[in-house]
Amino acid sequence: MTQPDTVISNTTPEELEGVLASAAEAARPLADLRPAERAALLRGVADALDAAADKLVPLAMEESHLPEARLRGELARTTFQLRLFGEVLEEGSYLEAYIDPADPDWGMGPRPDLRRMLVPLGPALVYAASNFPFAFSVAGGDTAAALAAGSPVIVKAHSGHPRLSLRTGEVVAQALVDGGAPIGTFAVVFGFDCGVAALKDPRIKAGSFTGSIPGGRALFELASSRPDPIPFYGELGSLNPVFVTPGALAARGEEIASGYAASFTLGVGQFCTKPGLLFLPAGHGLDETIVSAVRGINPAPLLNGRIAEGYSDGLERLAAVPGVSVLVDGAADGLVTAPSLVKTTVPVLLEHADALLEECFGPVSLVVEYAEDDELLAAASAFAGNLTATVQGEESEADAVAPLLDVLRDRAGRLLWNGWPTGVSVTYAMHHGGSWPATTASIHTSVGTTAIRRFLRPVSYQSMPQAALPEALRDENLLGIPRRVNNVLTTDDVKA
Amino acid sequence: MTQPDTVISNTTPEELEGVLASAAEAARPLADLRPAERAALLRGVADALDAAADKLVPLAMEESHLPEARLRGELARTTFQLRLFGEVLEEGSYLEAYIDPADPDWGMGPRPDLRRMLVPLGPALVYAASNFPFAFSVAGGDTAAALAAGSPVIVKAHSGHPRLSLRTGEVVAQALVDGGAPIGTFAVVFGFDCGVAALKDPRIKAGSFTGSIPGGRALFELASSRPDPIPFYGELGSLNPVFVTPGALAARGEEIASGYAASFTLGVGQFCTKPGLLFLPAGHGLDETIVSAVRGINPAPLLNGRIAEGYSDGLERLAAVPGVSVLVDGAADGLVTAPSLVKTTVPVLLEHADALLEECFGPVSLVVEYAEDDELLAAASAFAGNLTATVQGEESEADAVAPLLDVLRDRAGRLLWNGWPTGVSVTYAMHHGGSWPATTASIHTSVGTTAIRRFLRPVSYQSMPQAALPEALRDENLLGIPRRVNNVLTTDDVKA
Repeated sequence: MTQPDTVISNTTPEELEGVLASAAEAARPLADLRPAERAALLRGVADALDAAADKLVPLAMEESHLPEARLRGELARTTFQLRLFGEVLEEGSYLEAYIDPADPDWGMGPRPDLRRMLVPLGPALVYAASNFPFAFSVAGGDTAAALAAGSPVIVKAHSGHPRLSLRTGEVVAQALVDGGAPIGTFAVVFGFDCGVAALKDPRIKAGSFTGSIPGGRALFELASSRPDPIPFYGELGSLNPVFVTPGALAARGEEIASGYAASFTLGVGQFCTKPGLLFLPAGHGLDETIVSAVRGINPAPLLNGRIAEGYSDGLERLAAVPGVSVLVDGAADGLVTAPSLVKTTVPVLLEHADALLEECFGPVSLVVEYAEDDELLAAASAFAGNLTATVQGEESEADAVAPLLDVLRDRAGRLLWNGWPTGVSVTYAMHHGGSWPATTASIHTSVGTTAIRRFLRPVSYQSMPQAALPEALRDENLLGIPRRVNNVLTTDDVKA
Repeated sequence: MTQPDTVISNTTPEELEGVLASAAEAARPLADLRPAERAALLRGVADALDAAADKLVPLAMEESHLPEARLRGELARTTFQLRLFGEVLEEGSYLEAYIDPADPDWGMGPRPDLRRMLVPLGPALVYAASNFPFAFSVAGGDTAAALAAGSPVIVKAHSGHPRLSLRTGEVVAQALVDGGAPIGTFAVVFGFDCGVAALKDPRIKAGSFTGSIPGGRALFELASSRPDPIPFYGELGSLNPVFVTPGALAARGEEIASGYAASFTLGVGQFCTKPGLLFLPAGHGLDETIVSAVRGINPAPLLNGRIAEGYSDGLERLAAVPGVSVLVDGAADGLVTAPSLVKTTVPVLLEHADALLEECFGPVSLVVEYAEDDELLAAASAFAGNLTATVQGEESEADAVAPLLDVLRDRAGRLLWNGWPTGVSVTYAMHHGGSWPATTASIHTSVGTTAIRRFLRPVSYQSMPQAALPEALRDENLLGIPRRVNNVLTTDDVKA
């Protein structure tokens, strides 16, 4: 097991070659496991991680500076989603099995027997994030989705928590070996150059990433410029604006103020769903309440020095804009940072959109006063793609709010009502995505059960004999899964 | 109406600006139509095209040099798929409506009410192909899929059939106006520069293309290098190899010979699913039969001079490879071309893969002799992504063929048994795609009902009041569509 003083070397090109060759070897046997067999593997990984919690959590605390309760909760989320994908595999709809029996009377001319299902894309390269050392890292959502799909996974560890990455990787790898997974199903690699070399390798069939806009963009361009371009699913930057209506202000101003302060400082403001802007009606009178709530939050260490530096720079950038005032200045002292609060108006926001609509990672947020509904719509329209957008309103204002929701739907992957965007639930209906720059692939999600699709591709079989078909597509419904036969959903066998 | 001598000018930048502005304006009203209303629009377009057949088909004959029966069949296919997408809209599964009611006992902690569905991506730019002047052109599959999804469509007309494009565009646009579609739902633009400028415009949210590898690659890179990258669905090159087993040769050698000759010369060899290579057991003794079948096919005009030139060049490239012999030399005389047949062996193919595994558009195919199963597997493994791969075999050979099918599944979007890849049926289970260079987006199809997904993105609503939800996601199942409630499919209302 890893000792606290273990030095972790970068993966060498020779080691990487072995990892890639092994992943390529594993691809077909892993794909050929029945969905229920892969579900058992995922549960085995979840059980092993839960069992290792007392070893993993202290490592995570040490490397990420995040508190124990948060990290235990995050690990629980991580193992929950592995098990949830197990359920998805057993239910079987994810295979999208379609069977079109031959039809001599088909409208465009006789139709041959056609059967379609999704199969794994092949080895996936997952870039771990720093801000969720469990849930978006070695055994995080992307790994769970890719393994569930049947794609071998190579994780490029984040430099922010190398020992945790190594140890988590050992736990996952051992659980997979114990469960009988093909050798090469899973590996962790280390180092920037290794991460770049792996993405260029033809054995890698998809990439996924959670992190910064410049980093994600560079990798996306690498993936797109390969001789054989591959899909690259990057979850990048998001501002997550929150719009408060006059009705909501009147009804629950204090509650909104405290909810806001708690949400933008959660995880020391290092969540991709941090509310970066709060739009309040002019004359809202909440400044003192918010300032007091923000001042009440204890300073806490950021993940690493680079983030601390970015936070200080960002704060400076915001404060330098004419028309922006700093209500709370929580400038970082080393890694330890108190939250900051800045304030402006919609006209200033629109005039300095370049500076003010750029994500600033860390516990800072911008209160923006709007004078009337038109100003609110103009501000909402200024946003590019976001993971979330939130309206705090009253149901009696539905008509007034409708145009705002319309504008926001074009700009966000998730629309919230009277909630806060942090605390992303892992469910069937969750969508964690959005247009650029929220993601590089707006039609996909990185959280929720439909995240599995990113690692699957369709294959059709035409007039194939029963014995040569995958089990999922034979007349007899051997897997007992829902299938669309002639576009009607059924779990029945197909009549020969 | 367009006269035969109409001169079609390139769309000017000012005109393009108007088209883009209008498409952007149309996006939301088009998205807000009920699926059944969009179905009616698609049927209206189909009816109008059918009614205009006697005007459109002669224009298509003149510009494409393809025969009347083929073009009437293609138009029937085109209107069939518009109507089929209408069915898909009315059935409603395509919306992927998921409802997760709030759950205080959810495994990772209390879950808020989450509801997810697919919404249109926004204006799509469709690059028409030359080889299917109806089915992959102005009113072709991409247009049908995008309109069905609710995305306005701008078609970049192919220079090979400008007058047909203009006239088809008029018919489509008029039918949409007559059906009450928002102004800006559909437009056709002309000219290379216009096609490039449109793809760079931020109002365009997706691109789709059917054509050559270099053309598609250039546009894919343009789409990926935008400040805000967008999905680009290019269907590019494919070799569509056919592998004949010893058993199939013995049982049906003559039939295979004639089927092959007919398939690779269909549409004067200008199909993306043309079988470019036929693998036969050494000593097959079919040369004469195939040669005779090929010689029996009448010369016919290619689509245009550029294709004729490419065909001649390709033929020369193949013939120049040492170890390749020309069995039938159908070199083009102007546009008019007789089919050609060349022949080699697996060792030569593998040694000269660069020259021999490059698509040659037009009526030419390569017979490749293999000495044993290992050679066949080595040859199959040499292929990159393809739209199709075919095995001609006997069911008694299932065990021997299984490894070949395994290799091919990794390399093709559609696997055929004892058929020919040309003649792509439009059905629910059809997949017309594959890894690079078959497409730029291997997890999507350009034919079949699931092609609609390319123009849709998910949105989740969290804790949203009923009145603010889209109809598809309200407790009451207003559209009567199948929805997954707590991941169980139902058409019932959700109990409050």
